Amino acid sequence: MADNSSSSKIILPEPTIRRLPWYLAYVSMLHADNVEYVSSTQIAKELNVDSSQIAKDLSFLNIKGKTRIGYEVKSLERELRGFLGFKTIHPTIILGCGSLGSALIQDVGLQRYGLKIVAGYDVNPEIVGTTICGVPIFDIADIESRRKLHKAEIAIISVPVENAQDAADTAIAAGIKALWNFTPFRIRATEDIVIQNTSIYAHLAVMFNRLNSQNKK
Amino acid sequence: MADNSSSSKIILPEPTIRRLPWYLAYVSMLHADNVEYVSSTQIAKELNVDSSQIAKDLSFLNIKGKTRIGYEVKSLERELRGFLGFKTIHPTIILGCGSLGSALIQDVGLQRYGLKIVAGYDVNPEIVGTTICGVPIFDIADIESRRKLHKAEIAIISVPVENAQDAADTAIAAGIKALWNFTPFRIRATEDIVIQNTSIYAHLAVMFNRLNSQNKK
Repeated sequence: MADNSSSSKIILPEPTIRRLPWYLAYVSMLHADNVEYVSSTQIAKELNVDSSQIAKDLSFLNIKGKTRIGYEVKSLERELRGFLGFKTIHPTIILGCGSLGSALIQDVGLQRYGLKIVAGYDVNPEIVGTTICGVPIFDIADIESRRKLHKAEIAIISVPVENAQDAADTAIAAGIKALWNFTPFRIRATEDIVIQNTSIYAHLAVMFNRLNSQNKK
Repeated sequence: MADNSSSSKIILPEPTIRRLPWYLAYVSMLHADNVEYVSSTQIAKELNVDSSQIAKDLSFLNIKGKTRIGYEVKSLERELRGFLGFKTIHPTIILGCGSLGSALIQDVGLQRYGLKIVAGYDVNPEIVGTTICGVPIFDIADIESRRKLHKAEIAIISVPVENAQDAADTAIAAGIKALWNFTPFRIRATEDIVIQNTSIYAHLAVMFNRLNSQNKK
């Protein structure tokens, strides 16, 4: 694999991208414990992923393991973090600053992973004009005039489900390139717009279903 | 399909369970707009899912569509909500009440989908003994003696990643049957324990990668 480290300019298979943060979480722990090397077999055992799959996933990164020693923990952590885009700050706006939206604004973890919420938008006159954890909340009607000031390419959609498509359309009209959709609504957009769906309530349904099946046994 | 409505006692294919909340979100909107009937073709068009797939997904529910009219919106909404477990209150404890944990406690949306956080656990003496939005925060060391009082079967794991396995082990030892894991760590447990992973940071990585690829075009 050629020069693609710390840039993530190629499209990886989505299952691979989803596994890379697991490896990062594990090697970060090893790093904190001052462990110097780790093998794919060891990662495999710890994370319950096939070791040949791990070697394949890591082959996308600009890093080579050493025979019988494995990967240098510090380099692997750095490469993973860079490759995943977590080392770059992505200015982001958030549409809908109610319960879930303000919760996301308050989650400092997001910033550690490269997502910086620079402004919130809402329609509620009671919160427009206030700040949440230092993030200013503006009227959603002002989004187009303000968006360029923020230099944001990403918008989090955390409005009520019935407003999801409207909010998305407004964000896209204002020049947003990627939507992180926390509503269960299937937002439609042209193909050049990246849509990442994270419906935590859908995960909840999967968990309830499996728990009920277990309880029946 | 026989008597399985409002109970979700069978294991559905996970892709089906993940789509059902999309249908629910859509029919709830129709209901709010006083629409009476909806066809699978109409749902298909709106949600960009194949209409035969929708008919198949909905066949798991105790509801029949009428030829040329479709499904009754009100009944479909009620059946979906019940089937997905959203009508039953699931008492839940949360381990780790830092940034993400307290954000989840504050998200009233979860309760509307059947998840009620009844207690939080943490190791930080500054928050143990306090309440967050009315939810009491206890010392994680007291979990075993308290868990039965809460009647909780579900534990949310939102501790720092390096404590994920320990927190999970503690919860399971205290009798918890399902873990909703918000850390990127792959928690290990015996097969009778349901583990639902929701690593929002992994979704972030997928979005960054796709956005970078789009920007390169």
